[in-house]
This record gives sequence, structure tokens and C-alpha cells, in this order.
Amino acid sequence: MTRIQDVGEFEAIRRLLAARPKVQGVVVGSGDDAAVLTPEPGMELVVTTDTFVEGRHWRSEWIGAHALGARLSAANLSDLAAMAARPQWAVVSYGMRRDHDLEDLLAFDAGLSLALVADGAGLVGGNFAAVDGPEWFGLTLFGACAPDRAWRRSGARASDAIAVTGSPGRAAAGLQLAQRFGLPDAAAWWAPLFEAWAAPRSRVGFARSIAAIDAVRAAIDVSDGFAADLGHLCDASAVGAEIDAWPPDPLIERAADELGVSIEALRFGAGDDYELALAVAPPARARCESIARDANVPLTWVGHFTANPSERTWIDSEGARRSLPRSGWDHFTQR
Amino acid sequence: MTRIQDVGEFEAIRRLLAARPKVQGVVVGSGDDAAVLTPEPGMELVVTTDTFVEGRHWRSEWIGAHALGARLSAANLSDLAAMAARPQWAVVSYGMRRDHDLEDLLAFDAGLSLALVADGAGLVGGNFAAVDGPEWFGLTLFGACAPDRAWRRSGARASDAIAVTGSPGRAAAGLQLAQRFGLPDAAAWWAPLFEAWAAPRSRVGFARSIAAIDAVRAAIDVSDGFAADLGHLCDASAVGAEIDAWPPDPLIERAADELGVSIEALRFGAGDDYELALAVAPPARARCESIARDANVPLTWVGHFTANPSERTWIDSEGARRSLPRSGWDHFTQR
Repeated sequence: MTRIQDVGEFEAIRRLLAARPKVQGVVVGSGDDAAVLTPEPGMELVVTTDTFVEGRHWRSEWIGAHALGARLSAANLSDLAAMAARPQWAVVSYGMRRDHDLEDLLAFDAGLSLALVADGAGLVGGNFAAVDGPEWFGLTLFGACAPDRAWRRSGARASDAIAVTGSPGRAAAGLQLAQRFGLPDAAAWWAPLFEAWAAPRSRVGFARSIAAIDAVRAAIDVSDGFAADLGHLCDASAVGAEIDAWPPDPLIERAADELGVSIEALRFGAGDDYELALAVAPPARARCESIARDANVPLTWVGHFTANPSERTWIDSEGARRSLPRSGWDHFTQR
Repeated sequence: MTRIQDVGEFEAIRRLLAARPKVQGVVVGSGDDAAVLTPEPGMELVVTTDTFVEGRHWRSEWIGAHALGARLSAANLSDLAAMAARPQWAVVSYGMRRDHDLEDLLAFDAGLSLALVADGAGLVGGNFAAVDGPEWFGLTLFGACAPDRAWRRSGARASDAIAVTGSPGRAAAGLQLAQRFGLPDAAAWWAPLFEAWAAPRSRVGFARSIAAIDAVRAAIDVSDGFAADLGHLCDASAVGAEIDAWPPDPLIERAADELGVSIEALRFGAGDDYELALAVAPPARARCESIARDANVPLTWVGHFTANPSERTWIDSEGARRSLPRSGWDHFTQR
């Protein structure tokens, strides 16, 4: 017997995908942020799914039902943003204990709906299941894209600029601070970090605007840790990466100190950000900046792709060339 | 605080749906077997989702991983059959313990895939989550339908004939026998009942064939118990129903005796069948029979719809008029 924890989540998924039969009408299958399908010539359907499990993705002490619903929508919307798709419909799956508070359920569902509505989508169905153990909430989100316009992880070229939205690492720092010091203290003292975890912003509108100028060659949702997700994009595009302009973030630095972890572990290794990493054709940088400014989205140029597919370099603040950490979050090995 | 178990699953869902904002592009929303959406003029997308929870929907002593995967596909395929939709793609959500056996996972996924492929569909993505408590497997299935061709629960008219596929009640009887007497004994002695639970047949091909002759005015997936599901169809169509020709099933009768429950509780009240109940325009009966024969699907005419919307009558074997039981399975009240 081989246990999943022995081989890890990604190897288990690799074996699953290798064994699956080919499916008709699939433009992009498993292995990108979302699947791209062609129900009809002339249109593409983009589909993603994500599930939050009690005790692993949240505890009721950390986040209220409404905010948790909004956060589950944000996690799924982020996958569609990473494909530059227009969100349309979602179905939700509820695994709840029999004594689950109905008002809490209504608040969760409202949080889910409102976050979807803000990006033009809505709930169209779902399923209830009663559970005895930890609860879970799963969302499957569908959107549309014009033919051949969905961003993929492949497509980055050497010398393309690497852009990142928001401040990766803040979400995980906020969560770790809440776990360490409890709420509401952590939320009050470390509001920008805790908010990054509890209420991630949707990047859908920004992605749709920037897709219109045809500047992005590849994209990925940053949710498993920046280094791991950048690595997935590099692997898919057969390029390397050099991060030479990661901006200092005094809040992350203070949090790392307080938590007794390295700054790099937070900003490169920790997940839950639901931000975007983009490969941008260099001449389009200025136009991307202008769109980001108009959309009020923080966009940072952190480095560039290189021709050496095995390169994952980070130039630290002393100018030393270092390797980016390789691994992201694996739910099964918990490394 | 109101607990879900205090109001029951159906009332909780009613309150959720009442609070949700309206969504664009929805032809049929929550409250039918599947949602019907219009991504483009000229096509309809049909979507359903279902989840199996360990300890509630299955135990590993009752069913192997491959058969369980096939059964989850069957549960979802049945919803698309009840809309006469053509299954196309699915995404799967895995909630597994870290020590879950990888070979079991591969077997489950293969069972899922093969059942989908048999109806022309396939897996295009999914999600992994690690859990500490009971495991769960969720599938979201989508298919296509020509505009205005999806069967709905509404549409039945007084005097339409009521047809049912298979033998509702057998699945629940098989499961209860397995729980009572254990496997492999129950499966060996009661093979047709246990198989009805463990390996439900897909009715997709039959539904697609019969949809082509335009004979069906309303349809529902029989999965919560025949009486409850027929009641949902009656409610949606504002008609009553009289069941006057339910065929005797000696196996169900023996099982009821063995289990110490009433025959009616099994055949009208018990779920898990994944069969279809259809409202058929009377002149089309003979053509439906012929299609069922060609498709090798058992089809029985069990009664007819009536003009009194509150009627749910069953004529028993002595000719007495009795009321069909009202309630189906509620996961939260467990009644």
C-alpha cells in the first residue's frame, strides 16, 4: 500500500492524470488554473473548483461565516482571473453538521453570493450533505472566454517581465499571527496582514482589462506560495526565472521576526494570497502599469524570465544570488 | 440560534434560495434536477453536483473504490438523464485522509472516469483537500442540451401517464440488508437488490432516445424515495398523482419481511435508486415502450397524474385508496 502522504499531493495528482482517458472538447485540461472547454465553436467555457475544510482552511474563531463565504468565492474567482475569464455561474456543495446554525449558513451563502455578484457571477445550484466530523464548503465556478483568449501557464518567454499583484506572503503571515496571538488582538495589531488572509481582493476586473491589451503571455494564480506557483509557470513555459526586484515589506519583516520564521519563508513559501503572477512582454510594461493604477491594483515588477529552464534565482538585498525555495504547500505531506 | 436539523434540509434550502440574488443567463435555477444555463444563444449548459460522505453514503466494508467512483458518476449522470441532457465534462473534489491508499484513489478515479466515458463525458479537473475525519468525494457534472429541450419537473398534465424505470426501493433494500447481515453474505443472497445499490445503471442513453420523440412532459430523478420525488414533480407541475399499477416485486417483499419494515416503506420511501420518473403524454406510451425495449431499460406504467394538486394516492393490492407517504430522506433530520 502506498499512502498519499508518502508520495505527496502533486505526485498523486500526476498519477491520476496519467491514467485518465482523453476527453473531447478540452482546450486546456488539468494542470492549469482552470479547465478550458468548448461547448460550441466560437466560445470557451472555463471551469475551476476549490474546497475549504474546517480546521485546515479555517476555524470559526478566525473568521465569520459571511467573510468565509466571500473568501471561498475569492479563491475560485482567482483561478478564473488567472485565465482572464469572465465569471458567470457557480454551484456550491455544503458539508455541514446537523446542528449547523441556519443563520450562519445564510450568512455564508450571502458572502459567497455577494463576492460572485461583484464579478458578474452567481449561484445556480448546489448540494447539501450532513457530516459528523469537520465541515467543508466546495465551490465550482464557471466562466466564459473568447476562443483562444484564455491565459495559460505556458507561453512565458525568456526576458518577459514578471509582475505580481498585491503582496504575496501577507495572507499567510496574517493567519499565522492569528493562530499565535489569537483574535481580535492579531487582527487589530496586524490589520493589513490579517485582512490579506481574511478578505482577499478579486483580481478578475484587472485581469479582464489587461487581457484586452494582449500584453500577458502567461499567468498563474499565486495561492500555494509565490516560489512554488512561479515554478509551475516556469515548468509549463520551459523557462527559468530571476527575481531581482522584490520590494521590501516592513510589515512582513516585522511579522517574520515576531513569528520566528525567515522573511523568505513568508514571502516566497507561504500560500493563501489569491494574487496573480504574470509574464508580460517588456514593451507592454507601461500600459500594464497604467491599467493597474486605474484599477487600483498594486502591481510590482519583481524580475524576469530566463532561457535556462532550471533557473529559479533570487537576488537578495545584499546582491547575492540565491535559489528560490522549491516547494509550496502540500496538503498531504504538510510541507 | 436555529439549527438546520430543527427546520430540516428542505426548509433550509428554501430559505437559502429565497435570499439569493438573481443571476443572468439562467433558464432553470435551483429546485430542479440540474441547473440550465445559456452561455451562448443557441445552446444550453446543464449542471449538477453531488457528494458522497463516508459513513453516510458508503462504508469501505460495503463497496470497493472502483465501484464507489462509478456510483458517484451514476448519481450525477442520473440528474442529467432527468433533464435529457448530454453529459460532457466533470470536475471532482477529493477530501481524503493523508494516509489514503493511492491505489484506492486511482481505482476510484478510474471507476468515476469509466462511468462517465460510457455516457460520453470525462473528467477535466478537480481539487484535493486533506481531512482528518470522514472522507468525501464530490462531483460536478455538466452537459449540453438544445435550447428549450431540457426536461423539467414542471410540465406534467392531469391524465399524463406515470412511468418509472427500474425497480425503486431495491437499492435501499440492498443497502439495509448489507448493513444488517454484512457482506459478502448479503450481496450473495440478495444480489439483485445489493447490485441496485452498488451499481446503479445509467439512464442517460434511454433519456436521450426518448427525448427525441417529444413524448415526455416532465421528469425527475428518483433518488430520495419514489413518493418524495413524485411529490416534487407534482408540486412543480401543480398536479396530483394516483399510483394504481405498482407491480409486485417478490424480492422487495421478502426483503421487507427479513428487515422487519413495511413493503411500502421500501418501495415508496427509500432512496438511492437513481432511476427516472416520467410524465408521458398518453398517446406516446407505445413508442416509449418500444424505445425502452430497444435500450434494455425496464419501464413500468405505474399510474397517472390527476387534476387535484393535493392528491397523492396509492391503490393497494386490495383495491383500497391510501395516501402515499409524504416525506423522503432528509440528511439533516434523518427522517
